[in-house]
Amino acid sequence: MAPVKNGRVLFNEIPTGLPVAGRTTVYDASQTIDLDSVPLNGGFLVKTLVLSIDPYMRGKMRDPSVKSYSPPYFTGEPLSNYGVGVILRSENAAVKPGSHVYSHAFLFQEYFVANDASAFTVLENKENLPWSTYVGVCGMPGQTAHHAWREFAHPQKGDVAFVTTGAGPVGATVIQLAKKDGLKVIASAGSDEKVEFMKSLGADVVFNYKTEKTADVLQREGPINIYWDNVGGETFEAAIDAAAPRARFIECGMISAYNGQAPYYVKNLVLIVGKQLKISGFIVMDLFAKHLAEFYREIPAAVARGEIKYLEDRKLGLEHAGEAIVDVQTGRNKGKSVIVVAQE
Amino acid sequence: MAPVKNGRVLFNEIPTGLPVAGRTTVYDASQTIDLDSVPLNGGFLVKTLVLSIDPYMRGKMRDPSVKSYSPPYFTGEPLSNYGVGVILRSENAAVKPGSHVYSHAFLFQEYFVANDASAFTVLENKENLPWSTYVGVCGMPGQTAHHAWREFAHPQKGDVAFVTTGAGPVGATVIQLAKKDGLKVIASAGSDEKVEFMKSLGADVVFNYKTEKTADVLQREGPINIYWDNVGGETFEAAIDAAAPRARFIECGMISAYNGQAPYYVKNLVLIVGKQLKISGFIVMDLFAKHLAEFYREIPAAVARGEIKYLEDRKLGLEHAGEAIVDVQTGRNKGKSVIVVAQE
Repeated sequence: MAPVKNGRVLFNEIPTGLPVAGRTTVYDASQTIDLDSVPLNGGFLVKTLVLSIDPYMRGKMRDPSVKSYSPPYFTGEPLSNYGVGVILRSENAAVKPGSHVYSHAFLFQEYFVANDASAFTVLENKENLPWSTYVGVCGMPGQTAHHAWREFAHPQKGDVAFVTTGAGPVGATVIQLAKKDGLKVIASAGSDEKVEFMKSLGADVVFNYKTEKTADVLQREGPINIYWDNVGGETFEAAIDAAAPRARFIECGMISAYNGQAPYYVKNLVLIVGKQLKISGFIVMDLFAKHLAEFYREIPAAVARGEIKYLEDRKLGLEHAGEAIVDVQTGRNKGKSVIVVAQE
Repeated sequence: MAPVKNGRVLFNEIPTGLPVAGRTTVYDASQTIDLDSVPLNGGFLVKTLVLSIDPYMRGKMRDPSVKSYSPPYFTGEPLSNYGVGVILRSENAAVKPGSHVYSHAFLFQEYFVANDASAFTVLENKENLPWSTYVGVCGMPGQTAHHAWREFAHPQKGDVAFVTTGAGPVGATVIQLAKKDGLKVIASAGSDEKVEFMKSLGADVVFNYKTEKTADVLQREGPINIYWDNVGGETFEAAIDAAAPRARFIECGMISAYNGQAPYYVKNLVLIVGKQLKISGFIVMDLFAKHLAEFYREIPAAVARGEIKYLEDRKLGLEHAGEAIVDVQTGRNKGKSVIVVAQE
């Protein structure tokens, strides 16, 4: 067969503030690939179906000399992240042609050859869910919500939970897990449309943090026993002020500090002692060993039954990845951001 | 018998910054008491032997309308805190004349009548330790060190612990517990004399934070796996910067924020997520149920054997309590601050 186009999204320039599509990242359509003859060298050829766009990708767009929990992107090379694809050819018995695989090691390319089978999970998808759910509610974001809720929330009867970025794929799942546990849930997001979505998930108190002050809402509806933090800064401070004794703070992210904004300095850290707060930062990968098996047993089935709802912001075509990255950093996306690279 | 003087230390004025002896607190010698005939009304008469001066007393010197984890002091009334005394008379079968008792409910008075026997613990003191140790290494400060270390430290082979206020009764005990667990211990204090004391306790790296920058020491000797925080502010920030992944922060106090100093704003809270820090604020009273029995089984005996050392800053006479309070807030005390009110 003749070579076909192999579109890629390259990391082009380290951003200082927000990433800029077309500058921080560029779409490149110059490469081609011969799917029949490209050498596999013992590996396997993957056709990318969906790619995930996640907030933490901003942290990988750094000077590679800066150490962090996730490896950096290198300029001139394709981005990488969670994705789902189908195996076209394979020289590795563990990865059969026709199977669908999930991995954090997807290149932002239409096709790529991989070698490390241990980085790829074969998806059974007995429930016949859309493949995109496996990078969202059934993938890393859903796992983030599930694993950390199981590990750190310790929900008790009568508890009040406050969930930030409650319309995102992590926050939306947290809201639903908290409601399953019988809690009162306060949830915030940055648009009235997102607020409506959180309401539809069963959150008891929903608000747009751009038009209503978080501190005022928590003052009225708190105190809070569990705080799901995706935001940091002033919101973290408001949560400390509104925390009940022995409240649990689940530190999933602090997006307010990711893009070089003027930092907001939290003034009330001394209350951590008197209120006996338990503040737990986490990286979901470290919780897989303990919680992933339960996740795959419970969550895809609950999604298929409609007990856990999700919302996707789908963009069709790899050339839209750069915009999607910016949308996620600025909160313009509505639901889990997914790039549909190809239909089956 | 004729009435005798019953000296008292009264809370006189709510301080705005540091307490001032003679103004925030005043010594009053005008009251007398007839030890033979003072009515007990079903209670018991206590002769105060030693009183403890602790950093957290500053938090009780507040406007009583401000809620906190410990009840406020009221102006015009005697201070109260941990103490040891001997029972002179009793109308309560649980509290026998001649027994020695320990309680957080000691009034800053030479003699007082109490009613709530449940607030008083009868001390056996089989080891015949000085009674003052029961407000120090064998009392609340020692319990604070022991309980929180057992609850939150999770020491592992090869770990490095950083202990602030390492010459105080809590910090000194933490240093020794960490050394018993085989850890490398970095410890800081505010004078060269205190640094020498910490060295004598076995700490591996000791420094005077007034002459050497905490961040520099941690940069050189870290990363740290356990941080014992009594300080907050800039030291907390340095500890976050120097923290190893999954480090445990034991938030015992933040004395840098107690006396109205210009606040230091911690700039690197975002690292809580990426480093997966576990930050635990605590109040020792909430840990008694789980750890106090073990404490009384192990610690007084270890102190008697000389395996756990302690240092006391003793002042003789109730009239010195006001100065002692200021000393503790400014770090001028050398070792556990104790007021010896009376010999037996």
